[in-house]
Amino acid sequence: MRAAFYQGSRTFTTGEAPLPAPGPAEALLRVRRVGICGTDLHIFQGHLDHRVPRGGVIGHETLAEIAEAPTASGFRAGERVVVEPLRVCGACRACRTGAAYLCYSLKVLGVDEPGGMQEYWAVPTARLLRVPATLGDDEAAMIEPLAVAAHDVRRAGVTRGDAVVVFGGGPIGALIAMVSRHRGARVVVSEINPFRVEILAKLGIDVVGPGRDLAAFVDEWTGGDGADVVFEVTGNAAAVTAMTGLARVQGTISMVAIHAEPLPVDLYRFFARELTMHGSRLYAREDWDEAIRLAATGAVTLGPLVSRRVPLESLQDGMEQALRGGPVMKVLIDLRA
Amino acid sequence: MRAAFYQGSRTFTTGEAPLPAPGPAEALLRVRRVGICGTDLHIFQGHLDHRVPRGGVIGHETLAEIAEAPTASGFRAGERVVVEPLRVCGACRACRTGAAYLCYSLKVLGVDEPGGMQEYWAVPTARLLRVPATLGDDEAAMIEPLAVAAHDVRRAGVTRGDAVVVFGGGPIGALIAMVSRHRGARVVVSEINPFRVEILAKLGIDVVGPGRDLAAFVDEWTGGDGADVVFEVTGNAAAVTAMTGLARVQGTISMVAIHAEPLPVDLYRFFARELTMHGSRLYAREDWDEAIRLAATGAVTLGPLVSRRVPLESLQDGMEQALRGGPVMKVLIDLRA
Repeated sequence: MRAAFYQGSRTFTTGEAPLPAPGPAEALLRVRRVGICGTDLHIFQGHLDHRVPRGGVIGHETLAEIAEAPTASGFRAGERVVVEPLRVCGACRACRTGAAYLCYSLKVLGVDEPGGMQEYWAVPTARLLRVPATLGDDEAAMIEPLAVAAHDVRRAGVTRGDAVVVFGGGPIGALIAMVSRHRGARVVVSEINPFRVEILAKLGIDVVGPGRDLAAFVDEWTGGDGADVVFEVTGNAAAVTAMTGLARVQGTISMVAIHAEPLPVDLYRFFARELTMHGSRLYAREDWDEAIRLAATGAVTLGPLVSRRVPLESLQDGMEQALRGGPVMKVLIDLRA
Repeated sequence: MRAAFYQGSRTFTTGEAPLPAPGPAEALLRVRRVGICGTDLHIFQGHLDHRVPRGGVIGHETLAEIAEAPTASGFRAGERVVVEPLRVCGACRACRTGAAYLCYSLKVLGVDEPGGMQEYWAVPTARLLRVPATLGDDEAAMIEPLAVAAHDVRRAGVTRGDAVVVFGGGPIGALIAMVSRHRGARVVVSEINPFRVEILAKLGIDVVGPGRDLAAFVDEWTGGDGADVVFEVTGNAAAVTAMTGLARVQGTISMVAIHAEPLPVDLYRFFARELTMHGSRLYAREDWDEAIRLAATGAVTLGPLVSRRVPLESLQDGMEQALRGGPVMKVLIDLRA
């Protein structure tokens, strides 16, 4: 079977690999789609070389079908599934207190262990969720990032009438905006990429684009109060500088982005306004359930976020393009192409 | 009557001032004690020159007795009171949502308006709280900082069994430690000043002093989990660097200190461990009620925190000494001396 291998130094190769042999509680999946995620771009740039081995197979946003599964699992060949790509210890404080996705020994499939960028993939059946028949393959491949957004919005406690600012209108930012809107919030996204601005506009999401004073906009938009919730999804230092100035008294800042280096934060503003900032990472099972509901009911529109579908052999190109920015939102690898 | 006046450039003078004329809803107080607080040191250093006018009277940690009060207020001459030193607008979002102490137009008596460093002081009776007879004057003068600590601990949600780390063993840090302990938490304070370390030890508070690896200590102390709550009360950049490394998964960091400049924060740690940081400032009325209860019942020991009592004429000296550090905890101005 074909697979893509991380070779370090911003290089992926494709080649042949032996068919994985599923363990007793595992299913063998035939992979259909794998999304390229911001984490994958960090891997591509070498930021996670301490976790991803040379020759490793990445990919954690996966839609697949069951090739074979233990009868007792209830899964049958041909069923479409998405994969919650986590392996947890079950014994640490996080696992014991209902936050196993933050396991002190967490392994992410597609980062620390083999992922979905291969034709066949062996995965514990406990980590599979069925995909409703109404969803197309491209939409179903977006359930993983939608689960991230559902988690972020749930953890931030977004509620009806809230004024929500999202820094960054990539796939996660757009999904956070849509999930927040579905919860009854008023939402504005800060984004400068014109291709993304256009997609956001098509989705009916208000955007504050380049050349506009976001702080002045939020001040007027909220009648001087400030935003209830601010999501930082860009990973840029400029957003970290700006975020504290936008939140209302006792407002919430959700840190969704990965900032590889410590950045200056206006701690006085935290004190003066009693702001709260929390990190928001991955998802609990309830976030996956919510994501599937949101997708299946059409509460969130996923199709327009997929800007390209490329074969596994184009992974290198897809990475480079995603990194350059430009006219790209979500790029999916089509393992059937 | 005598008063102390801020003259800018690290200078206080004392002199005569006319007796304040209380308004219709105000009492005339005869001041007994005023504590010198970290905020006063910021004023002394000129950091708050945009708020404190030249010739202004500072002081917001006040114990006084009623000289005269409107009959309808219920206060009678001679009663001892402490002062909640806040003037709020009553109409903004903070005031409307139960957090008036964060009023968007907040005025702090002793900062933005005249404070307690004068023999007599006119204050709205709505801002006065009676002091139980069992408390001495020095202890009663500590009720304001104790209300700060009660607020910080309440807002951080410290609960029985929590492992709590406090950066900074000055008066507020020591009080946070004692209030947390009263709530059933296990507490350790990071402090290097030997004079303060000695007082903390006398109060039965565990201290991790200079030359010890705090991170290694916390790791072992919590069985590898990390601390439930970390209070940053020093205002030093080193504590901001260290704080993110000490908190457990989904742990809480309380930002009590005033950091005049933005400082580098490990945002990746926020993401990876889903940490929460919130600012914590001043107090609601319930925190004052709690502070008076804690003081009156002896749940918190206040006397040992008072290291010096000096006359108003020594304010300049007291400020300089507090700023130098050295053998000092809380310095009180005794207006009767």
